[in-house]
Amino acid sequence: MEKGTLHWNMTKYERGVYSEENDEVAIEFPLTIHINGEEYATMVCTPLYLEELVIGFLATEGIIRTTKDVKSISIDKDMGFAYIDIHRTFQRLNAGDKRWIGSCCGKSRSFYFQGDAKTARTVLSHFHVEPEVCLTLMNEFHNHAEMFQRTGGVHQAALADKDGMQIVFSDIGRHNALDKLYGYMLKHSMQNNQKIIIFSGRISSEVLLKVSKMGIGFLLSKSAPTNLALELAYDLNITAAGFVRNDRMNIYTHPERIIETNKQRDLS
Amino acid sequence: MEKGTLHWNMTKYERGVYSEENDEVAIEFPLTIHINGEEYATMVCTPLYLEELVIGFLATEGIIRTTKDVKSISIDKDMGFAYIDIHRTFQRLNAGDKRWIGSCCGKSRSFYFQGDAKTARTVLSHFHVEPEVCLTLMNEFHNHAEMFQRTGGVHQAALADKDGMQIVFSDIGRHNALDKLYGYMLKHSMQNNQKIIIFSGRISSEVLLKVSKMGIGFLLSKSAPTNLALELAYDLNITAAGFVRNDRMNIYTHPERIIETNKQRDLS
Repeated sequence: MEKGTLHWNMTKYERGVYSEENDEVAIEFPLTIHINGEEYATMVCTPLYLEELVIGFLATEGIIRTTKDVKSISIDKDMGFAYIDIHRTFQRLNAGDKRWIGSCCGKSRSFYFQGDAKTARTVLSHFHVEPEVCLTLMNEFHNHAEMFQRTGGVHQAALADKDGMQIVFSDIGRHNALDKLYGYMLKHSMQNNQKIIIFSGRISSEVLLKVSKMGIGFLLSKSAPTNLALELAYDLNITAAGFVRNDRMNIYTHPERIIETNKQRDLS
Repeated sequence: MEKGTLHWNMTKYERGVYSEENDEVAIEFPLTIHINGEEYATMVCTPLYLEELVIGFLATEGIIRTTKDVKSISIDKDMGFAYIDIHRTFQRLNAGDKRWIGSCCGKSRSFYFQGDAKTARTVLSHFHVEPEVCLTLMNEFHNHAEMFQRTGGVHQAALADKDGMQIVFSDIGRHNALDKLYGYMLKHSMQNNQKIIIFSGRISSEVLLKVSKMGIGFLLSKSAPTNLALELAYDLNITAAGFVRNDRMNIYTHPERIIETNKQRDLS
């Protein structure tokens, strides 16, 4: 299996001693996406699951909604190009890149791009999970994170439900890992209700928006959130928990989804 | 002093017990930059040292070269806008965003944007540093990283020389921390030879390119590199060391700058 890493000769220095060693480093791969023949964007990524990446990326960008919008997709891995043809006429949505300040539509002040305000959706899912399940999932996630432990260079995003993890994607780009997950879900027409996303990186506004676009209401992270991400999580009805480690976690928004069934909690 | 953090009420879960607590989280602030009256870009950042951020960002983008190119700059911190007027006519360099594949000019194959190929420069500095100095600097850097320890949400970039650290900047965006450093150096017309950059985050190609644009030949990181960053570091004559922690480090490129003066090393 391909690994997304390669070897690099380096000089190790430890306690006064130099040695020549071989280290495994993460591959950072430039991929240029063409839509209907027009160059759209260049991203750097881990060169695994590029089709999932492209599909997920274009879905979070609001350019496609499902894989039915895709006529064809081909990846030239040697040169680092992805060619995707979509059914509708593709027009670069310059307006969507413009900063947008407004508070209409009941959506958050926190949106700073028009495009996000259109594609982010309020999550309606009402399922709940036992706190011990969250800790067990993070533990399972941590054990899967082999490549990260080896190269220290990649982030992971996993899809899970109450019964355990379903799929994990790695990428040197934190957002790419989530896009691969989204692309995978779209390719397999997976349901998004009762699902949980587990993420190795910080909960930033961009991460939170991606989760919302996937229609998922539950995000567990090993790391810290930002205020903007939490404002969005609150408004979009997403349960965001950070610093999920060993026997503890910080539940920043919508803690009503994390309850012990046997104990009645008073959150008033 | 402002801190770039705020408080957020959250539910802590630890060993079966829920408690309501107040956590400090990093602020993620959207800043929209206008150049000569035209909207150029929106970034999210830690809202501290915004003038340094804007100057450093525009310098790494190749839009200005020194602060002499800046006619005026004003920051509207309430609304999150930066207005910068530059002396020359500003034209959005669409061509610079296009992917560029070539191997002319002696520059690396690793450049994937035309703009980078123009602004990145081969570092000519030949100074060298004792390995113990590198470890001491990283230790000092680590002790300064208070905000990171508190909120887990920001990256740091510091400028140092053999005698110690000179300035540190924090930002939720890893690239922003480096841009603030660059902006500070430009504002104070600082020399870039014999300088070292210490960075908390991964050495990606974008990080490496920023260091090269600053003309600095020495990069120490707590974290891992990517292969693309190392190819660039090799070509641009930058010493890149990763996993610099306690009594050890991995020197990935140009180890000839890290030598013990008393010992003669054989690197052949």
